[in-house]
Amino acid sequence: MTVPGDRDQKKASRRSFLAGAAGIAVAGASGKARADNPKNQPPNVPEWTRSLGDGVGVRAYGQPSKYEKKVIRRTVEWLTATPESSVSFTPLHELDGIITPNGLCFERHHSGIAEIDPADYRLMLHGMVDRPLSFTLDDLKRFPRVNKVYFLECAANSGMEWRGAQLNGCQYTHGMVHCVQYTGVPLKALLDEAGVKSGAQWIMAEGADAAAMNRSLPLAKAVDDCLVAYRSNGEMLRPEQGYPVRLVVPGWEGNIWIKWLRRLKVGDQPWHTREETSKYTDLLENGKARQFTFVMDAKSIITAPSPQLAPLNKGFNVISGLAWSGRGKVARVDVSLDGGRNWRAAGIDGPILDKACVRFYYEFDWKGEALLLQSRAIDDTGYVQPTKQALRKIRGVNSIYHNNGIQTYELKPGGEVENVEVG
Amino acid sequence: MTVPGDRDQKKASRRSFLAGAAGIAVAGASGKARADNPKNQPPNVPEWTRSLGDGVGVRAYGQPSKYEKKVIRRTVEWLTATPESSVSFTPLHELDGIITPNGLCFERHHSGIAEIDPADYRLMLHGMVDRPLSFTLDDLKRFPRVNKVYFLECAANSGMEWRGAQLNGCQYTHGMVHCVQYTGVPLKALLDEAGVKSGAQWIMAEGADAAAMNRSLPLAKAVDDCLVAYRSNGEMLRPEQGYPVRLVVPGWEGNIWIKWLRRLKVGDQPWHTREETSKYTDLLENGKARQFTFVMDAKSIITAPSPQLAPLNKGFNVISGLAWSGRGKVARVDVSLDGGRNWRAAGIDGPILDKACVRFYYEFDWKGEALLLQSRAIDDTGYVQPTKQALRKIRGVNSIYHNNGIQTYELKPGGEVENVEVG
Repeated sequence: MTVPGDRDQKKASRRSFLAGAAGIAVAGASGKARADNPKNQPPNVPEWTRSLGDGVGVRAYGQPSKYEKKVIRRTVEWLTATPESSVSFTPLHELDGIITPNGLCFERHHSGIAEIDPADYRLMLHGMVDRPLSFTLDDLKRFPRVNKVYFLECAANSGMEWRGAQLNGCQYTHGMVHCVQYTGVPLKALLDEAGVKSGAQWIMAEGADAAAMNRSLPLAKAVDDCLVAYRSNGEMLRPEQGYPVRLVVPGWEGNIWIKWLRRLKVGDQPWHTREETSKYTDLLENGKARQFTFVMDAKSIITAPSPQLAPLNKGFNVISGLAWSGRGKVARVDVSLDGGRNWRAAGIDGPILDKACVRFYYEFDWKGEALLLQSRAIDDTGYVQPTKQALRKIRGVNSIYHNNGIQTYELKPGGEVENVEVG
Repeated sequence: MTVPGDRDQKKASRRSFLAGAAGIAVAGASGKARADNPKNQPPNVPEWTRSLGDGVGVRAYGQPSKYEKKVIRRTVEWLTATPESSVSFTPLHELDGIITPNGLCFERHHSGIAEIDPADYRLMLHGMVDRPLSFTLDDLKRFPRVNKVYFLECAANSGMEWRGAQLNGCQYTHGMVHCVQYTGVPLKALLDEAGVKSGAQWIMAEGADAAAMNRSLPLAKAVDDCLVAYRSNGEMLRPEQGYPVRLVVPGWEGNIWIKWLRRLKVGDQPWHTREETSKYTDLLENGKARQFTFVMDAKSIITAPSPQLAPLNKGFNVISGLAWSGRGKVARVDVSLDGGRNWRAAGIDGPILDKACVRFYYEFDWKGEALLLQSRAIDDTGYVQPTKQALRKIRGVNSIYHNNGIQTYELKPGGEVENVEVG
């Protein structure tokens, strides 16, 4: 489905695209032979058309072009004490559409990347169940499964900036999100096999990495839409994404999507693990901390133009970005060119899927004036992505988690884009 | 949307899954300390939980697990004279869902893989237009674009078998198909910029490879849904897929999706290029050849079980497969266990997109008897995927192209699967 943007505005800018676009020129397209072209080939035939291409080098597993070497995940060295506890960021500014290619999906690990032999992999399901069970990977693959496109966002996404770090570019401010098609067994199916005892309310999910990363998950969510997933975009999960099996908890913060999933224990109360007490709680101004703030609320980010891309040219341009909501579907995305004073609806491209990213576009004719670019997501619960100021009024500044405030870019007369804060 | 399969049959097999699944056993899940476990760790804690994982090795561009080395594109050496004219096949049996990861997308090239510097890339648009235009890659990226999931199938997919080659496994018989999310500029937008002259009916698309691969495309199709695409699953096209720009011709045979797209010439009749006269025509029994058989008709293939996978275990199993139609949406997929005598509707997982693959599943309880497994796709025009015999009656056996006949697998009592032909 396409949500129409401002059609009048689009129509008006069509002419200015041709007028303004650099490099679109009338070509000498007649194909006339030239004197220095003895074989009478059309002029300007490039080298790659005059010689055989590489046939031998076709790879069994393909790789990007050598000209795309800058399109990579990046890390921030000062962010963590050692590389065994680190995070890499998706280059959102270099991507389009809604699917993140597997090689560029951000990842966060707490004790390095566990290297698990799938033949030795086991998933234990125990606790308040009638029949404790242990599943091999082949067991899991025999179950009925589903394929779902979901976004995955770290609770700390945009958190560095919240704390005042000067980061320029959405790869760093918003790059802890990705969106892929997961293949997995509904967790409900495994629980049904084991038989959940009366009185059970929570599940503890534990990873097989050295952190034994673990979180408490309400049973209601577990049987609603959680997946025990083993594929991403069709192929097996990458090692850094929990190979061979991870939990998928649609719309909820990434740290509960336990990777290298080893154990699921059913109980009647949460476990209050380290990851939900000393970590991943949100300390408020009054000294109290919000706990179990699972849901990632509606958020959006303009991915182009970007401080990491070439300056914008004048004339017709398309603002491109991503939006998502952990509470359901994105209903609308608005774009402002004046720092949030005026908003217009952006167009949403492609199907709008539950708890998945959508791609939005906003077409505009840029005369070269300074602008303050913003986007805001509205989800189908009616929730509107807030300003950072509104968030700070409610939550204070202690916690770096769940910063879904509106991002502002200053577009300068030269076409450069800078991450700024508006008052 | 999920199309329900046979619910009674599904319910009946639920119990037999637990009874029949190998390797699902009651686990010693109490976590008791053992005498040989001085640190009092839970039993069976694997090595990867006892030591820090790899942190340094986090790759800027991620790769599959070392345990997935068998999940690769494969070639057939006798198929082409030199590797500069070759094809690699997608390992369909190792994938699930509908998105093919970029590294595993089949590719066919006629003169090797052109290596194009994006800075020197140009697309020429000329012929019967008001303003001949030349676009740089940056020019194309400034245009409004769309993101669409489409299947891409080679006209010769399943052609080796049609000619009698003994190929066992859907990677070889059906692996010249993939399905990704493309990002591209609607070709109509570029034609609008150039201004198509009255009387124009066709467009010639030409590649920048040494084959200068070219095809004639009806203008009506060009302005309907064709894309000048530069991304696949979010990132730039891979070299072997036409980096930096290829034509996307939804639902039509792959050879017209010109890679390394260099030139679009508008005219009033087809060019009758080599690729649509001596190649890619379908010679009938009566000596006449069908020309311009663009559309890839409805087709399906069971991807698991497969001759290339481990033998099937008795008990509850899920048959998994892909279906697609070049004429629109897949309306239904049927599965037969008895070589086509009886058919039952399979479930379709996920959204059913226009001219894209769908994933189908069929759950059944296998007692170990010999079966003849088949699938057939029905599209929203009412077209039903035919048997091979029906195709041969109409077309004879001269042409290897457009073989969309129903595939049969023999499931043997030991669980092995073999590609067979039924009478």
